[in-house]
Amino acid sequence: MAHKWVYKFSASTTDGNKDMKPLLGGKGANLAEMCALKLPVPPGFTVSTEACLAFYQNDKKIPVEIISQIEEALKWVENLTGKKFGDPANPLLFSVRSGARASMPGMMDTVLNLGTNDKTVLGMAKLTGNPRFAWDAYRRFIQMYSNVVLGVKGGILEAQLEDLKEARGVHEDTKLTAQDLQELVEVYKDVLLTEHGLKFPQDPMEQLWGAVAAVFNSWYNPRAQKYREMNNVPHDWGTAVNIQSMVFGNLGDDCATGVCFTRDPSTGDKKFFGEYLINAQGEDVVAGIRTPWPINVASTNDQNKQFKTLEAAMPAAYTELVKTYQLLEHHYKDMQDIEFTIEGGRFFILQTRNAKRTVAAALRVAVDQMHEGLISKKEALLRVQPDDLNHLLHPRLDPKAKKILLATGLPASPGAASGFMVFTSKEAEEWAKGGKKVVLVRTETSPEDIGGMAAATGILTARGGMTSHAAVVARGMGKPCVAGCSALTIDEKMKTLSVKGKTFKEGDHITFDGATGEVYEGEVPTVEAQISSAFAEFMSWADEARRLKVRTNADTPHDTKVALEFGAEGIGLCRTEHMFFAPERILAVREMIFAETLDERKKALVKLLPFQREDFYGIFKALKGLPANIRLLDPPLHEFLPHQEHEVKELADVLGVSEKRVLERNNHLHEFNPMLGHRGVRLAVTYPEIYQMQVRAIIEAGIQCEAEGIQTSAEIMIPLTSELKEYALIKKECIEEIERVFQEKGKKIKYKIGTMLELPRACIMAREIATQAEFFSFGTNDLTQTTFGLSRDDAGKFLPTYTMKGLYPQDPFVTIDQAGVGFLMKHAVSEGKLGNPKIYSGICGEHGGEPRSVEFCHQIGLEYVSCSPFRVPIARLAAAQAALKG
Amino acid sequence: MAHKWVYKFSASTTDGNKDMKPLLGGKGANLAEMCALKLPVPPGFTVSTEACLAFYQNDKKIPVEIISQIEEALKWVENLTGKKFGDPANPLLFSVRSGARASMPGMMDTVLNLGTNDKTVLGMAKLTGNPRFAWDAYRRFIQMYSNVVLGVKGGILEAQLEDLKEARGVHEDTKLTAQDLQELVEVYKDVLLTEHGLKFPQDPMEQLWGAVAAVFNSWYNPRAQKYREMNNVPHDWGTAVNIQSMVFGNLGDDCATGVCFTRDPSTGDKKFFGEYLINAQGEDVVAGIRTPWPINVASTNDQNKQFKTLEAAMPAAYTELVKTYQLLEHHYKDMQDIEFTIEGGRFFILQTRNAKRTVAAALRVAVDQMHEGLISKKEALLRVQPDDLNHLLHPRLDPKAKKILLATGLPASPGAASGFMVFTSKEAEEWAKGGKKVVLVRTETSPEDIGGMAAATGILTARGGMTSHAAVVARGMGKPCVAGCSALTIDEKMKTLSVKGKTFKEGDHITFDGATGEVYEGEVPTVEAQISSAFAEFMSWADEARRLKVRTNADTPHDTKVALEFGAEGIGLCRTEHMFFAPERILAVREMIFAETLDERKKALVKLLPFQREDFYGIFKALKGLPANIRLLDPPLHEFLPHQEHEVKELADVLGVSEKRVLERNNHLHEFNPMLGHRGVRLAVTYPEIYQMQVRAIIEAGIQCEAEGIQTSAEIMIPLTSELKEYALIKKECIEEIERVFQEKGKKIKYKIGTMLELPRACIMAREIATQAEFFSFGTNDLTQTTFGLSRDDAGKFLPTYTMKGLYPQDPFVTIDQAGVGFLMKHAVSEGKLGNPKIYSGICGEHGGEPRSVEFCHQIGLEYVSCSPFRVPIARLAAAQAALKG
Repeated sequence: MAHKWVYKFSASTTDGNKDMKPLLGGKGANLAEMCALKLPVPPGFTVSTEACLAFYQNDKKIPVEIISQIEEALKWVENLTGKKFGDPANPLLFSVRSGARASMPGMMDTVLNLGTNDKTVLGMAKLTGNPRFAWDAYRRFIQMYSNVVLGVKGGILEAQLEDLKEARGVHEDTKLTAQDLQELVEVYKDVLLTEHGLKFPQDPMEQLWGAVAAVFNSWYNPRAQKYREMNNVPHDWGTAVNIQSMVFGNLGDDCATGVCFTRDPSTGDKKFFGEYLINAQGEDVVAGIRTPWPINVASTNDQNKQFKTLEAAMPAAYTELVKTYQLLEHHYKDMQDIEFTIEGGRFFILQTRNAKRTVAAALRVAVDQMHEGLISKKEALLRVQPDDLNHLLHPRLDPKAKKILLATGLPASPGAASGFMVFTSKEAEEWAKGGKKVVLVRTETSPEDIGGMAAATGILTARGGMTSHAAVVARGMGKPCVAGCSALTIDEKMKTLSVKGKTFKEGDHITFDGATGEVYEGEVPTVEAQISSAFAEFMSWADEARRLKVRTNADTPHDTKVALEFGAEGIGLCRTEHMFFAPERILAVREMIFAETLDERKKALVKLLPFQREDFYGIFKALKGLPANIRLLDPPLHEFLPHQEHEVKELADVLGVSEKRVLERNNHLHEFNPMLGHRGVRLAVTYPEIYQMQVRAIIEAGIQCEAEGIQTSAEIMIPLTSELKEYALIKKECIEEIERVFQEKGKKIKYKIGTMLELPRACIMAREIATQAEFFSFGTNDLTQTTFGLSRDDAGKFLPTYTMKGLYPQDPFVTIDQAGVGFLMKHAVSEGKLGNPKIYSGICGEHGGEPRSVEFCHQIGLEYVSCSPFRVPIARLAAAQAALKG
Repeated sequence: MAHKWVYKFSASTTDGNKDMKPLLGGKGANLAEMCALKLPVPPGFTVSTEACLAFYQNDKKIPVEIISQIEEALKWVENLTGKKFGDPANPLLFSVRSGARASMPGMMDTVLNLGTNDKTVLGMAKLTGNPRFAWDAYRRFIQMYSNVVLGVKGGILEAQLEDLKEARGVHEDTKLTAQDLQELVEVYKDVLLTEHGLKFPQDPMEQLWGAVAAVFNSWYNPRAQKYREMNNVPHDWGTAVNIQSMVFGNLGDDCATGVCFTRDPSTGDKKFFGEYLINAQGEDVVAGIRTPWPINVASTNDQNKQFKTLEAAMPAAYTELVKTYQLLEHHYKDMQDIEFTIEGGRFFILQTRNAKRTVAAALRVAVDQMHEGLISKKEALLRVQPDDLNHLLHPRLDPKAKKILLATGLPASPGAASGFMVFTSKEAEEWAKGGKKVVLVRTETSPEDIGGMAAATGILTARGGMTSHAAVVARGMGKPCVAGCSALTIDEKMKTLSVKGKTFKEGDHITFDGATGEVYEGEVPTVEAQISSAFAEFMSWADEARRLKVRTNADTPHDTKVALEFGAEGIGLCRTEHMFFAPERILAVREMIFAETLDERKKALVKLLPFQREDFYGIFKALKGLPANIRLLDPPLHEFLPHQEHEVKELADVLGVSEKRVLERNNHLHEFNPMLGHRGVRLAVTYPEIYQMQVRAIIEAGIQCEAEGIQTSAEIMIPLTSELKEYALIKKECIEEIERVFQEKGKKIKYKIGTMLELPRACIMAREIATQAEFFSFGTNDLTQTTFGLSRDDAGKFLPTYTMKGLYPQDPFVTIDQAGVGFLMKHAVSEGKLGNPKIYSGICGEHGGEPRSVEFCHQIGLEYVSCSPFRVPIARLAAAQAALKG
């Protein structure tokens, strides 16, 4: 028997079903499924995706066997409908649509009314008694066909339509008469012939073959190809072609067409909702030229309340629609988006698909449908994209507001921000004190901007990537941020921002959306996020399902509390150095750095000890016994140096040295590649007393807490390890100091010591290092930088080109690069367990809150992920989905 | 039967042999071997290294079983010699020496005359008729034993000796009488008792147990432990103890002692060479107080020609010595260093070992001994340390010159340099033009210093490591260089160098040795290297033995020619960017960088094209068909920016823009971590036209050569790859340009395209990348930097501390880190072959000329190594040794 290339669907016979998407595409599979449900679907057939591949193998010609199967299916439709393709007496018309396995922009969409020609148009006019309808259908067909099949640029024929309307003095297409449209058809054909050398095909079969080939060819058009490369869709999937007999909602007043949702796509409320138009085609409902009418009372609003509902106008059809939507939602177990047409009072359904919805609606529908017994908890959990939860937690731009887009940067930290522009942190703080909402606009931020960032309602930078300082700190603070918006020219001295030929100055309003990266002129109103009760229930299911623990990156008691409210189960990364920038501390930090002798350094460290102890005390208290992974000092010392004149002077005074000496020392501490420089454990190798002070602060704070009845679980993390001996030496020195504290206080607490794996060598040597470590934490930001040899702060100059040219599968700073960085992580996890079977591992890089990366962490057997507080719910859901998929 | 802990040796019986070094130590094994050869060795016994371990397991007490075996061996020696340990009538005395498997500084050395006490000293005086000898032996014994066994600080007893000499008004020990020495013994014992509470042991057995325990304990003294950690000597080897009956060269004029070499240790000449003294102890010959006498005419020189030779003074003993040395050299198949003593006309041999020698001598001896049929070529090749060849190729400091050491930096590029200090490259060039030898002194060098470096006789920097710019370029040029000499304070503005409280200025003389890192004040004469005919023969054997090819890193026709003379088999790395700094080119380079449009950039590139083509033409011509691996532009563009005011002005003029604009652009090109920034293949992703120009230059030069009948073999190398897609895109663009050149010229040449593996991710993804690459070249400098997360330019601040604390097994920039970086290399080689079975791999990092790294490259199956021209012979020998060891 010949291979089956063509699958029929009709109320009587159907070859496919909804699970055959790989073969029939999404559209074809759903049409088949609805037919199997005996729903009134206009009959037709689907040419399979395999046929598409065969087409390419056959030199872009439709193979003979497929042609004959299509011809056979066509006859079958003729028999079912009693009409005949190309027969002027009773013409059968088709719609031709592409349909890939997944919805995919860039391919050919739809050709309607295929089969119309100079002769059948007359038959249609006669049969329907509606010549205007017939000629309108013909001219629409020529337009669509010329564009998508013949490759004539869009707009060329439409211009003729506009000319005609002008000549007739009318504004709407509907005001053109049958005669006008007939003339227009002639004009169209003439333009095609004289200007493009194209004779519009009159043979319906020729039209059909052209359309089928055009669908197949569109699979490899540049836009579609690009889309697949960007989204990792294999080229060898191919697309199906759906060829379906036409029904018409625009034959007269007993005809209608409409679109409906089985629930409210905005809120998820369980109400049947939709719009329709009498005597119209589907595209008229969505085109926005005419206001569509409500299908029922639940769908009325201020704009459409004067119109008659479908329920009132065509009660029988409405009843059938209701029965249909209930059947479909129940059958698909998901909220549906349904297209229907009523031709001469007869109800047809043309399409159903899972409806697009807001995340609030997605969550609500999932929870409701679980309670309705329609879906399981697992299905409910897999229904929501983890990243979408972002929208629930942050303020958003008012979707109804008008906006003037200035530029688009990186969506570095979600949430909308609107406020007065300021260009320095100092001003941000001052304006904020004066009660003003400000947006801090900087070329890039540095650790010295912490105060200004905290005071601002949002941060906007022209340089830096998704893991630049601005991005990381903003996410940590839960502040909206757009980073690396390279279209902006920022002059921090002149306090101006220029873009698109406009120049703005300090105090001008600006707005941006940190979830999309879009920057808008002026003030755009924002609306606050509202957390529903469905959210809490949904997240509790996620917690039941997941294996991975979710911790947070938090440096202060405040951040810790926020994260715990979002469900964090401890701290995965507490960056002790972020505590060093407070004004009352930075001077002591600088004294430490400038110390020329051990005694001087110790003197400065003694000043810092009480601050650090207080920080840790507050964090332990907030955690109530949950684990706190505290990373000892990591960044290069020069990050803490004074840069501004008054800071230099202040430090010189305190130290009793000249300003010149301060500048010399600054210069001495300069590094060519600070990322690869004197930092992390290397600081402890040269200056052991820094970590000694820090572990003392941790242990003293812990003892204090436990004396007050608060449990503690401290994990002391040594950063930037590359070698067992190095790590072991510093671990030993830490333990010695801890033992001294125990002796002094006469009390002991439990603690763990482990290390961060953020260098390729640390991952390679994991087995050895594990013999002395109680835990590992992957610092995937730095691990990505070193594995790729890619500085995140400098990558802005070429990474966009990489993305544009599709050279990296994704931005490795956003999603873990599984092939490269992931190879090292997997190696480290399995080798680590060989070195120490009790070792446990987590991740504390920015990737810890990114769903695909969380799934990877689950797969390779990490014990927990850690992310910024606002991403904790995302990580919880991603972890649950990973477990459910596994 | 009890375990054997003690091994006897005597002319009659001997338990050991030379292959038992692990058990008996080097000294003990050779004593046993000589006894087996029936040579006149004073009898004794060796307590094994196992006994040392047993001692530690027994709580640092000598186990009973070992005590009884020593006692038994002692009786055996008494029987053989007819003397008795501790018997005043005929006392037997012993020497006690440590002896580990390998010569190891830091441990206890020697105690002589053990067994002397208040009673036996009288017996010795009587028996020898020489009381002065007896009392001198006793006081020497107390001195040594107090110091090494009792732990009394060296110098304390010696001070008493000095006091006595002063009191007697004499300058030499030999002028003290027996009476004086007897008094001194009493003073010694008194000082020990009253000042240190130590009663000097009179019981010979107590003396013996103390000495044996002291040798065992010295195995774990801090200096020895440190030495083992630094040199990867296992702690569980332990040391043996050699207890040997004493013979005396200082009993009278029929006694003598001496040291000799079987060949000349300076030149390797085949002449028997040695020195001796009549009526003396071994230490007198080497202490330099008395001028030693020549053993034969061949050993005479201006200082010793007036003395009688041993040959003349004691012909019988001399004849025996000659027979002995010939026997030993023949037996050990290597040049020996022999100690002998003549007691009462009787010849004894106390030690033989392979002689220390200069590298010139080592090479000469190896070649001669091979021709004499004593050793095989393989043995000859393994006899010379590859690194030592350095001394043969570069000028050296005159070993006889007096020197004042100022500081020690890193031995960055071997060879001695002496000249006037200059502090800028400009001055270096000017002074050099004036015919003056200059040393360029800089805090650090940058690519702009190339001219100055070329003009200088040597380069000295205060910052940077073994692979800093200065070090790499100097090695490439074959110039001596000391880098990272952090003790120096260099003020480039004031043109001064300060160290150890002294300040030097421009024009002062300075000298350094690039092979040791030592920097000396003033002018120290240097001597030129002389290459012997033995060298050429020796290297030809190396070439027969090795599997690895040896190429060179060379950027100019001149370097290429030098390297070919040293035996290079092609170029492994031609850095195209080094060609960009010449004054007539740098301006065009800057125009290219400042181009704001593609057209401007192309215009600048057109100017560079002829220069590059000329470079490549010259290199191809020099290579005569040998392969040339040419790396396309690698460093970040900002390395080429103008920094000095006049350069900024010049560029602004050429570009027709303001100086401010030039500075702005400079600023824009600044990178936080240039090492991880916009460089290598990333430049080609954003500016494809740069590599297009470079491949055009390569191919045009190749076509020109081949037209002139010169074969070419170009390998085009794309640097900094991290991903197949990125590499494949640039490769495709290169090939397209090459095809255009072929078309234009109507000629084709062969070429290969491959990539550098210098990022961890490239190594991880090697299998994929190999599918499109014809070769791999490991850039181990950058691979080490990224694997460790360690910037070589910044590591100077902490790497010395790492070395000091023994945290890294070795400097990973000097020797390949096999566990970490090597893991990635091995992975890449084996995965690469899976991706492309025909791929071949080499190394072009600095490690390519370092013997241990070369051995590793051999082991993991690379096809070639590449190194700077002057290291080519070293790499050839290292490659031969690797093959011979494998």
